[in-house]
Amino acid sequence: MVEKYTIRTDLAMEQKERFESDHVEVSGVVLEEEYDEEREIKITTVRIETENGAKMMGKPVGTYLTLEVPDMASADDGYHREISETLAGFLEKYVENEETKNRNADNEKEHSKEKGCSILTVGLGNREVTPDALGPYVVDQLNITRHMVQEYGRYGVEEKSRIVSAIVPGVMAQTGMETAEIVQGVVKETKPDMILVIDALAARSSKRLNRTIQISDAGIHPGAGVGNHRSVITKETMGIPVIAIGVPTVVDAATIVNDTMENFIAALETSENLKGVGVVLQGYNSAEKYELVKELIAPHLNGMFVTPKDIDETIRRISYTVSEALNLLFSGKAGESEKKEETA
Amino acid sequence: MVEKYTIRTDLAMEQKERFESDHVEVSGVVLEEEYDEEREIKITTVRIETENGAKMMGKPVGTYLTLEVPDMASADDGYHREISETLAGFLEKYVENEETKNRNADNEKEHSKEKGCSILTVGLGNREVTPDALGPYVVDQLNITRHMVQEYGRYGVEEKSRIVSAIVPGVMAQTGMETAEIVQGVVKETKPDMILVIDALAARSSKRLNRTIQISDAGIHPGAGVGNHRSVITKETMGIPVIAIGVPTVVDAATIVNDTMENFIAALETSENLKGVGVVLQGYNSAEKYELVKELIAPHLNGMFVTPKDIDETIRRISYTVSEALNLLFSGKAGESEKKEETA
Amino acid sequence: MVEKYTIRTDLAMEQKERFESDHVEVSGVVLEEEYDEEREIKITTVRIETENGAKMMGKPVGTYLTLEVPDMASADDGYHREISETLAGFLEKYVENEETKNRNADNEKEHSKEKGCSILTVGLGNREVTPDALGPYVVDQLNITRHMVQEYGRYGVEEKSRIVSAIVPGVMAQTGMETAEIVQGVVKETKPDMILVIDALAARSSKRLNRTIQISDAGIHPGAGVGNHRSVITKETMGIPVIAIGVPTVVDAATIVNDTMENFIAALETSENLKGVGVVLQGYNSAEKYELVKELIAPHLNGMFVTPKDIDETIRRISYTVSEALNLLFSGKAGESEKKEETA
Amino acid sequence: MVEKYTIRTDLAMEQKERFESDHVEVSGVVLEEEYDEEREIKITTVRIETENGAKMMGKPVGTYLTLEVPDMASADDGYHREISETLAGFLEKYVENEETKNRNADNEKEHSKEKGCSILTVGLGNREVTPDALGPYVVDQLNITRHMVQEYGRYGVEEKSRIVSAIVPGVMAQTGMETAEIVQGVVKETKPDMILVIDALAARSSKRLNRTIQISDAGIHPGAGVGNHRSVITKETMGIPVIAIGVPTVVDAATIVNDTMENFIAALETSENLKGVGVVLQGYNSAEKYELVKELIAPHLNGMFVTPKDIDETIRRISYTVSEALNLLFSGKAGESEKKEETA
Repeated sequence: MVEKYTIRTDLAMEQKERFESDHVEVSGVVLEEEYDEEREIKITTVRIETENGAKMMGKPVGTYLTLEVPDMASADDGYHREISETLAGFLEKYVENEETKNRNADNEKEHSKEKGCSILTVGLGNREVTPDALGPYVVDQLNITRHMVQEYGRYGVEEKSRIVSAIVPGVMAQTGMETAEIVQGVVKETKPDMILVIDALAARSSKRLNRTIQISDAGIHPGAGVGNHRSVITKETMGIPVIAIGVPTVVDAATIVNDTMENFIAALETSENLKGVGVVLQGYNSAEKYELVKELIAPHLNGMFVTPKDIDETIRRISYTVSEALNLLFSGKAGESEKKEETA
Repeated sequence: MVEKYTIRTDLAMEQKERFESDHVEVSGVVLEEEYDEEREIKITTVRIETENGAKMMGKPVGTYLTLEVPDMASADDGYHREISETLAGFLEKYVENEETKNRNADNEKEHSKEKGCSILTVGLGNREVTPDALGPYVVDQLNITRHMVQEYGRYGVEEKSRIVSAIVPGVMAQTGMETAEIVQGVVKETKPDMILVIDALAARSSKRLNRTIQISDAGIHPGAGVGNHRSVITKETMGIPVIAIGVPTVVDAATIVNDTMENFIAALETSENLKGVGVVLQGYNSAEKYELVKELIAPHLNGMFVTPKDIDETIRRISYTVSEALNLLFSGKAGESEKKEETA
Repeated sequence: MVEKYTIRTDLAMEQKERFESDHVEVSGVVLEEEYDEEREIKITTVRIETENGAKMMGKPVGTYLTLEVPDMASADDGYHREISETLAGFLEKYVENEETKNRNADNEKEHSKEKGCSILTVGLGNREVTPDALGPYVVDQLNITRHMVQEYGRYGVEEKSRIVSAIVPGVMAQTGMETAEIVQGVVKETKPDMILVIDALAARSSKRLNRTIQISDAGIHPGAGVGNHRSVITKETMGIPVIAIGVPTVVDAATIVNDTMENFIAALETSENLKGVGVVLQGYNSAEKYELVKELIAPHLNGMFVTPKDIDETIRRISYTVSEALNLLFSGKAGESEKKEETA
Repeated sequence: MVEKYTIRTDLAMEQKERFESDHVEVSGVVLEEEYDEEREIKITTVRIETENGAKMMGKPVGTYLTLEVPDMASADDGYHREISETLAGFLEKYVENEETKNRNADNEKEHSKEKGCSILTVGLGNREVTPDALGPYVVDQLNITRHMVQEYGRYGVEEKSRIVSAIVPGVMAQTGMETAEIVQGVVKETKPDMILVIDALAARSSKRLNRTIQISDAGIHPGAGVGNHRSVITKETMGIPVIAIGVPTVVDAATIVNDTMENFIAALETSENLKGVGVVLQGYNSAEKYELVKELIAPHLNGMFVTPKDIDETIRRISYTVSEALNLLFSGKAGESEKKEETA
């Protein structure tokens, strides 16, 4: 049954939404929503807690946090700074969480509390394909420190600073290798404490395009991303925690069509003039309606994506916002302004 | 009434097709089709002959030739060479045609028959927006000769060579000027015999995307092009002939949706199961159906375009094919292989 | 005689320096120097006041202001903001000066004092050749307003804002036209009050590379710029004032060699060990020494330039600083902080 | 003493030349020269055979083949094809040589003679710094096959085709990791038979800039390359053969100066007029003269490089020539035309 729902989305919240619109209960999956009124950011947390939930959702067990930022594609520098800070704050919690686990795991080794962990940042995607270039662009703008710590010790960088390395592995058509093979090799050789992956995603709804950031501790799994890669980059495969940051930059053209069809069918079912069809279509469930629509979609829509015309500029801008957040995270100063406010 | 049909297309053949699907006769517009079996190129000529035809079509009087080349976006170098030669052959006819008119107009001046005319090539569009960058990319690859003729005379270039200058004027948001103002100024100052404009277009059907080339002697008119510019670059405004070459690189997202809706409605009208609606919708004409669809299209589709994911690479490749055709045309050697065949 | 001095520099101050090192008095040329200690900027003004001075200097009559900013190529954002403000302040004086002249010239037309003039900005150089791309890069980042004023009137932009249009004409090998022809055409068609040209220059001394900005009201003249263009863009040819902003981004490789030779010869003349040659070379003047050196310079140095390895990044950064200055100038707010300080 | 000679060059032939000009015999180093008259390519082979030779030369034991191709930077497509074929022919010998060694080493495993080896191609350098971007650009244009062989087996590619993977590791400032760490990791994970490294080099003589290709089986060693990296990528560190391909794209500015000084000093020693100094300088050896020159070189020449102005275009063109050669090599068809000629 589940396959019938496979209109593609990389956002856990959209997958959950889908079940809700069909009034299907999914056990083992928890949804929470909050709203940051000041910054106009809607925050949705989807927690996939059981293997059954993972199966239904088509995504691994883990926490998926989604920020919806209506003006993320706009050109307001001050607002972008705010998004960066908010994003950095959430990432800080994810990273601190993993740092604490690590520290507990090897507490006999007497790690200093201050010691920042070392993070390998991976920019997934294809630099030559604009909507898939988010990962590489973000990595281009990071403050890299590992080589300075290697050369001058911890004194080579600021006190709370984390140890940052980064790689843009390229896509399989460029390298002939699975991305996971490259990352695996680099991890074994350079032994970071954690992996942070940035990727461009596909969304179901065009209204989430370039306006949404998903953070997850579930890593990267097959079929995700704009480039639809097959790599598995997770704690299980890599041996260290993997935090994934994704921004939807494309919607499948077929999806757009499907959405409108559903609106149309809904209209048919309620409109006075068009009641006739209502009778017929009421018997159809979501999956059957989707099948009906799929037949009608022109075959040359395959491989077509919907993007805003200014995608080049939009991707540049979002990559800047995300890289700023990461640089804050790496500096060890993320969430500081918040903490101050709380003490005040 | 006409406005109701304004699902946007820059291809005259698509506009004509539209009327035909509604069984509307448009007087003053002639359609011809041929098929080059060897090269698998379909050639459609739309001739708008009267002002009435122009009004109905929403396009000025002129000849619009369209090449449909199914594999234009593919990577086969040999085939691209063939397309370039075919395109150059058609352009040669357009240019020779204008050269002949010019020669007759000032025959007392005793122009040498050999003298190639001077052509200002204009690459419209925005270099920073991939689907709009076709014009600038084509101009980047042209063999420019005017400065050599200015410096060394006709002996500075090959015998039959035309005199070529080129400009990438940029878009209004970059220059603050209408493109037509810039071209006008350059024309007055440098006095070419003819203008050749290259632009990226919007199509109605995604199956024409990156597979179609339109050549027209009607110039560029308001609202055309991916960037939707307002410039009028025609023989009337510029005082010299204007030949326009366009390739559709985007389809409006709303258009895609509309197409599927129409398929759906057609299915409703014929399907046994769904006959009920048929009764209601039979009374709707094209325009009314379009209105119905428009209401249903999500507002965030505005400004959204449908493109293939590999648009960056596709545009590069097509720009290369078109520039090769132009370089052949400029060298005065276009159509030579054909002529040889004919004599043989 | 003068030709013997033609080691190439586009900086008037370097030309002047040259004469001074040879103890040659140049009548009609005035030099002033000041130093902004706080910002560590050395300001040199060369005023070429007579035709004789112009002949000696190989540059037209006019005022040449040079800012030497040791850290201009560094990555300090705050400092770049300061340079932008300083540069904007000097440009403001140039522009106000021309505005005043204009106002006096047509005072019967009762221009409002508030009305900002309209400025056509020209980004000279070749976008595809990094050290020559400064002009195009600067123009890419300008706030363009002319089209908004055309559409919505003066209320379309902020109160004191000037009316800004811009063009990147390309170089002759790309366009087949003299840059001056293109600019001329655009000026006649769009009638700006003033032209502002940005260009990459060649310096004599590598220590001025990417650290120096020259502002001049003498416009652009043949042989200047990295691309060595032949265009004349001056008040005489264009009919409106032309302000030129230039940054040296290359040094001729032969020049570097020459400099060291001169050091060597100087050493020969003073060193105890090497006194022998001193006797011979004392009789040589600058020009003769240069001839001697020229013979020794390997012929494959022709067309070679000296640049820092990180030229790509440096040019991007400087283009940002210059464009910020221009945007300040265009907004009508240049020099405001200074004025405030003065009143305080 | 040796350090005094450390005017930097990555070309073994230039290092050898240096000793010869000082009439110094270097034991354990063999030089051979041939000339391909038809293609106007000079071929120099330097064989460093002993550890003593390696010490003197400052380069590891190995064979260094240098092609000098005067017109490599020109735009003649046909000629570039010829260079690609010649280069592919030489590379074929290097690769076949290593394949034979491998085959003998594990001959009990009964490898099919036909089986092409698997090659990891590494594009060293910084994509954002034009003269250092050769490696990344070459890799961008390779025909990658490993993923196809992984998916479809040997039948996924043409019969004689080698198995090709590739990576652009970036430079340390971008990744925080030694290039060698990344390559090491990838080698361990994907187990290629051989590594092929492409890098931009520094030359001593500007006449070799963009005109020379060095092939070596000695791998990459510290201090080589435009970016002056510290990585050691050799058979010893990687456990598999490493073939290095390098093209000099920059000359140290100080080197240019030094060359001219030497010409000058030579002139002083022979010229009638200048005989005085001759007496003094005859006592100086190369190293002492270099010291003298170094004092005279302006300190701001540090970090300055000499390049042709059209470096962007030149690097693109050479990267194309090298990638064509590699694609020929990978296809298993390199040297075929030659073999045919020999049998004929």
